[in-house]
Amino acid sequence: MKKPNIAILGATGVVGREILKIMDELKVEYKSLKLLSSAKSAGTELKFQGESYIVEEAVPESFDGINIVIASAGGTTSKKFAPEIVKRGGVLIDNSSAFRMEPDVPLVIAYVNDEDLKKHKGIIANPNCSTSQLMLVLKPLHEKAKIKRLIVSTYQSVSGAGLAAINELTADTKANLAGEGFKNVCFKKPISFNVIPQIDSFCENGYTKEEMKVTNETKKILHLDASTPISCTAVRVPVYRGHSEAVDIEFENEITPDEARNILGNAFGVKVIDNPEDYEYPTTRDAANQDPVFVGRIRKNIAFKNGLSLWCVGDNLRIGAALNTVRICKKITEMNLF
Amino acid sequence: MKKPNIAILGATGVVGREILKIMDELKVEYKSLKLLSSAKSAGTELKFQGESYIVEEAVPESFDGINIVIASAGGTTSKKFAPEIVKRGGVLIDNSSAFRMEPDVPLVIAYVNDEDLKKHKGIIANPNCSTSQLMLVLKPLHEKAKIKRLIVSTYQSVSGAGLAAINELTADTKANLAGEGFKNVCFKKPISFNVIPQIDSFCENGYTKEEMKVTNETKKILHLDASTPISCTAVRVPVYRGHSEAVDIEFENEITPDEARNILGNAFGVKVIDNPEDYEYPTTRDAANQDPVFVGRIRKNIAFKNGLSLWCVGDNLRIGAALNTVRICKKITEMNLF
Repeated sequence: MKKPNIAILGATGVVGREILKIMDELKVEYKSLKLLSSAKSAGTELKFQGESYIVEEAVPESFDGINIVIASAGGTTSKKFAPEIVKRGGVLIDNSSAFRMEPDVPLVIAYVNDEDLKKHKGIIANPNCSTSQLMLVLKPLHEKAKIKRLIVSTYQSVSGAGLAAINELTADTKANLAGEGFKNVCFKKPISFNVIPQIDSFCENGYTKEEMKVTNETKKILHLDASTPISCTAVRVPVYRGHSEAVDIEFENEITPDEARNILGNAFGVKVIDNPEDYEYPTTRDAANQDPVFVGRIRKNIAFKNGLSLWCVGDNLRIGAALNTVRICKKITEMNLF
Repeated sequence: MKKPNIAILGATGVVGREILKIMDELKVEYKSLKLLSSAKSAGTELKFQGESYIVEEAVPESFDGINIVIASAGGTTSKKFAPEIVKRGGVLIDNSSAFRMEPDVPLVIAYVNDEDLKKHKGIIANPNCSTSQLMLVLKPLHEKAKIKRLIVSTYQSVSGAGLAAINELTADTKANLAGEGFKNVCFKKPISFNVIPQIDSFCENGYTKEEMKVTNETKKILHLDASTPISCTAVRVPVYRGHSEAVDIEFENEITPDEARNILGNAFGVKVIDNPEDYEYPTTRDAANQDPVFVGRIRKNIAFKNGLSLWCVGDNLRIGAALNTVRICKKITEMNLF
């Protein structure tokens, strides 16, 4: 197996640091490793596997000789450097939404649609966090009973909005408990002890971009018909880390809760915690810093003929971002796709 | 109009105190007022409209000569005293779940199904908090387009679980921020910076009682066919006051978001806040201590042919409990039904 020269673009960010942690955990093999960031963060020293790395400012020439770039530096940066990476023969694994819906770009959850990786033309997109955790759960159920309709309501933590949002939850909560005023900046509404029904900006149809990502990315990853009815309501809750989702699924064919529990019990990257009588079900905090997507509350949905309802929880920084990009990096190395 | 002798059973509780506040706000007229509680809380002094009341222990004879009892003291207490109240000619407006699904007991949201009050045989039930706020929103939409299917995911505050739960959220949050451990008591899982997918205990079918209340009470209040498909996932969030709900509705007939906004803009007890481009939509904290149910995020649901999605927020202690019981008290006085 050929070992790649790897660069991490956006290495100093919340997700970038998580990527490094996971590269270590998953024992990613590489020939060389380069850490890149904006001019602002360049010069930062980061430790990795006992070695010290000085983060460099990303410029086109940074990608000379690089085989795989894992990028988590926002859509603008990805768009700027993608052609530079590709023309130098590198493969970009991009965590932004910039390329996800482009027909030429595989949108991949490792172990869900790995075959799509083979079609890449230099760019591979990592799905949105709320989609990602759902795919590991839905794929094996879809294989068994075929998804006909999907309704998702999310309970998303603030870490998806970055470090400043994490700090705002803390500061706002402290002020609230002390009976002091607080001026929210990251969030458009106070986040402490509150629930905000908006993530990302609004589309023409009244859904937010976050909600439409769940709709459109799910169809692309699971190869569903474009007309498959999927609706999502994406909501921010005052939680630091982990996204939860209430999921209502209508299937073409019958599938019982016991069958679903069995299937998910054997599925890659999924852990079933589902014994409600003993209060065994996943809460959001259970997922923090964990790899699996946790699933519970599996029951026959009483509003659909062949329906299931379930509750799924994942770490939005890991399975929702860093973990899947690193898994893709391993896959394209193993599959010799760089 | 005949003025009733009124007793409040459970006067010292969170909801009991809210009932007194609202009786004052709504200028409820009465001949006499008696405040009742368990032996434990008897002797408490409560102020009401400038007068001082000593709370008495509820015994059967407490209800001699009482025309209307507003009870919020739990199902066991309601069951114990209901026959005593009824045989003395009084009307019980009960906030517990004890009688809600009994065929002889009207389950009423004031201004939604007032006609049902006429069928009472001494007991009138107040719906569960998550159902209550939804009814004011769904009734006028149902009249226009007929509900065919309903999917609800809730974001419920801790105050629904009482004063101890409110205190636990504060104590747990403070401990969490200080990096200290905390032993949860009220909630089966830590509530600080967490989301818990369980409210009330579990039924045979895998839904919780709270979830089945939304299903069954909605059908009873809106006089829907028993086979109407309704599914709910009820979830606790770290919020003090106010319940929010992501609601997906399929209708028999077409109804556009604009039509829905118009209808709800003119509906009793509902306030539309729905201008997402300017970040105008209700968050949970907006509803605290407010009477209206706030509705926003009204959009065509893309998973159903004649579908709407919306977000509704209500104060669980007011419209979810105290406000509606007091409104019913006024209604049966005006309608001469005691």
